Amino acid sequence: MSSSATVELLGITPNAERLIEEAGRTCYLSFDKMGDDSHKRFIRMIIKNGHHSVLEHASATFRIKGGSRSFTHQIVRHRMASFSQQSQRYVDEHGFQVVTPGSIEQNPEALKVFNEAVAHCREAYAKLKAMDIRKEDARFVLPNAATSEIVITANFREWRHIIDMRTEKGAQWEIREISEQILKELAKHAPTVFEDMAQA
Amino acid sequence: MSSSATVELLGITPNAERLIEEAGRTCYLSFDKMGDDSHKRFIRMIIKNGHHSVLEHASATFRIKGGSRSFTHQIVRHRMASFSQQSQRYVDEHGFQVVTPGSIEQNPEALKVFNEAVAHCREAYAKLKAMDIRKEDARFVLPNAATSEIVITANFREWRHIIDMRTEKGAQWEIREISEQILKELAKHAPTVFEDMAQA
Amino acid sequence: MSSSATVELLGITPNAERLIEEAGRTCYLSFDKMGDDSHKRFIRMIIKNGHHSVLEHASATFRIKGGSRSFTHQIVRHRMASFSQQSQRYVDEHGFQVVTPGSIEQNPEALKVFNEAVAHCREAYAKLKAMDIRKEDARFVLPNAATSEIVITANFREWRHIIDMRTEKGAQWEIREISEQILKELAKHAPTVFEDMAQA
Amino acid sequence: MSSSATVELLGITPNAERLIEEAGRTCYLSFDKMGDDSHKRFIRMIIKNGHHSVLEHASATFRIKGGSRSFTHQIVRHRMASFSQQSQRYVDEHGFQVVTPGSIEQNPEALKVFNEAVAHCREAYAKLKAMDIRKEDARFVLPNAATSEIVITANFREWRHIIDMRTEKGAQWEIREISEQILKELAKHAPTVFEDMAQA
Repeated sequence: MSSSATVELLGITPNAERLIEEAGRTCYLSFDKMGDDSHKRFIRMIIKNGHHSVLEHASATFRIKGGSRSFTHQIVRHRMASFSQQSQRYVDEHGFQVVTPGSIEQNPEALKVFNEAVAHCREAYAKLKAMDIRKEDARFVLPNAATSEIVITANFREWRHIIDMRTEKGAQWEIREISEQILKELAKHAPTVFEDMAQA
Repeated sequence: MSSSATVELLGITPNAERLIEEAGRTCYLSFDKMGDDSHKRFIRMIIKNGHHSVLEHASATFRIKGGSRSFTHQIVRHRMASFSQQSQRYVDEHGFQVVTPGSIEQNPEALKVFNEAVAHCREAYAKLKAMDIRKEDARFVLPNAATSEIVITANFREWRHIIDMRTEKGAQWEIREISEQILKELAKHAPTVFEDMAQA
Repeated sequence: MSSSATVELLGITPNAERLIEEAGRTCYLSFDKMGDDSHKRFIRMIIKNGHHSVLEHASATFRIKGGSRSFTHQIVRHRMASFSQQSQRYVDEHGFQVVTPGSIEQNPEALKVFNEAVAHCREAYAKLKAMDIRKEDARFVLPNAATSEIVITANFREWRHIIDMRTEKGAQWEIREISEQILKELAKHAPTVFEDMAQA
Repeated sequence: MSSSATVELLGITPNAERLIEEAGRTCYLSFDKMGDDSHKRFIRMIIKNGHHSVLEHASATFRIKGGSRSFTHQIVRHRMASFSQQSQRYVDEHGFQVVTPGSIEQNPEALKVFNEAVAHCREAYAKLKAMDIRKEDARFVLPNAATSEIVITANFREWRHIIDMRTEKGAQWEIREISEQILKELAKHAPTVFEDMAQA
């Protein structure tokens, strides 16, 4: 089964592929070679040649809702990206949602164990709050399954790297599914930059 | 009460303050000014003048045991550092330890709620494992309180930044206590670099 | 006298201040506080509180023409930015332009010395090229004064940092003048983010 | 002919390969597998599996003398490294040394042109200084060929990346020769980490 996370494109560099060409041709002062479709040829050339730094001039921002804290703990390890994440220190989590792994959802017994554990955590959180324990301490009983909203901005080179690492076979299922959604969005808006990955 | 986390210095640049001087004097080719204690004057000067990049030539590595997943999720946001962290995908967590916030430990009723929630999570994890749910999925029921071992390497400039941000009043208590322990260790081995912070 | 460099804004995040608010409110899930002008209050608050990471979600790209290689060697030291620079390995530099420092331009004798040196370098470059010395080797006779076009992309947090460091009294005059031009452009398009610097 | 640059190892993480193993086994809590030579097997495994972040826990610092400003302008583009470089703003460059490209050195006519240009630059610099032009402005007549001392610290992952990019066929000869010298030093002190590159 698939993650319930939703991926929303909040912003992306306008005319991104054109900007990449304009920036990248600075290295060669080859602006005279620019024409209607020249950015496609240029971008394919720099990707093929490994001149990926040029792709850093464009970036995209996504809002991801419904990812678990396991997912966010992994994704924030990418250091060339910018994150704003729902803080369990400041947000009251009494009504927290959870991500249920597919292997658990498909197994009625496992699902029962999982749901009971989540319910117990929820109840404990509410009780601790009622005893005037601060949010930043009460959250210690929240499970990894709890969702955490996050906004991520990265440049295209870094998105290529993240997608490359996180959509491969060995990647954990939740981060893989979210990365695949991100790739789909990026391929719509910057088809030449992401075409090799989207077809893979 | 204090965090039960332990901080162990695994490695540090040998003769770190001398190396910083040797590297930093390259900017001015002022090697003729080097003497027995000249590194102290030099380091105080560059810190005062904001020429902090020179401090990047030395680094230190710490192993932190007994920090919670809340702590690790915060600390890995520092991007100029290197992390190797206990993976809940690969490590069997059936015997996981927990961090109990002081506000809970001092409140018998709250402590009871907390301990029961932790016990329930532990039991649920064991049951899911017994049903052949993989570790990477079973861990969704583990609480933030679960400890996670982590090794962190950062250069001295970044350690100064981390300590600066994480020991201030508004910082969360667990990351503050761990940062204070780190500062104590660093001040022993590179007293001039960290003296202003250690005395603060 | 002022640098002859020109600064052109190639691209900037659309509705940048709004995007910053949308991203930043994720930390608190405080979207209900958004209104027509709420982004101004929000941005002033995060800048005051030192929560600058939120500013990373917006970025701007500039093309700088007419800066010297001394300037570019300094500016590329900023590591949280992306650069595409005119390459002396690939571009024929026989007609290179130069930056003349004001202190030299205002001193007729010095100007004569400077112009003769530049002319000699230009002639040597042409002769070496005529002897089939490759561009990447002939360039060794080019002076620091030679201009080098560069495109720079950085997020708003990093632009604030660059401007902060490079417009201060002790900064070198060329990088200071260029940074001031960049600040002017940024303050036009993201007035709240840069107002405190623009008024300084 | 070869660059006249010298590469001196100023510092390196003591017992670097052992530290990498100690840090890296944290991910799996597999410390029980550590033995006399286990770090070799462990490091080969993580390199093969692409788990390169573990290599970041060790670092090395080099002093490079006799590299040209062309070289330094290239090398400082590597962003995951730390640099302290001889500053032409602060150091009097009247006696500057130069790097002579091999293609010029082997061609007597070219060498004459090159040497005359360098001599002219040197003379112009001295004259400007004698007219009380400040170092930061007089340096505009210095050629790319002028040497610039630099100290570089990077972690092993980044050194692998730098060496990978800078020793390949298409790399410029000066940066290639210096990178090869760096690789030789690193392979002496951390043979397992760099063996695949040293044999290539």
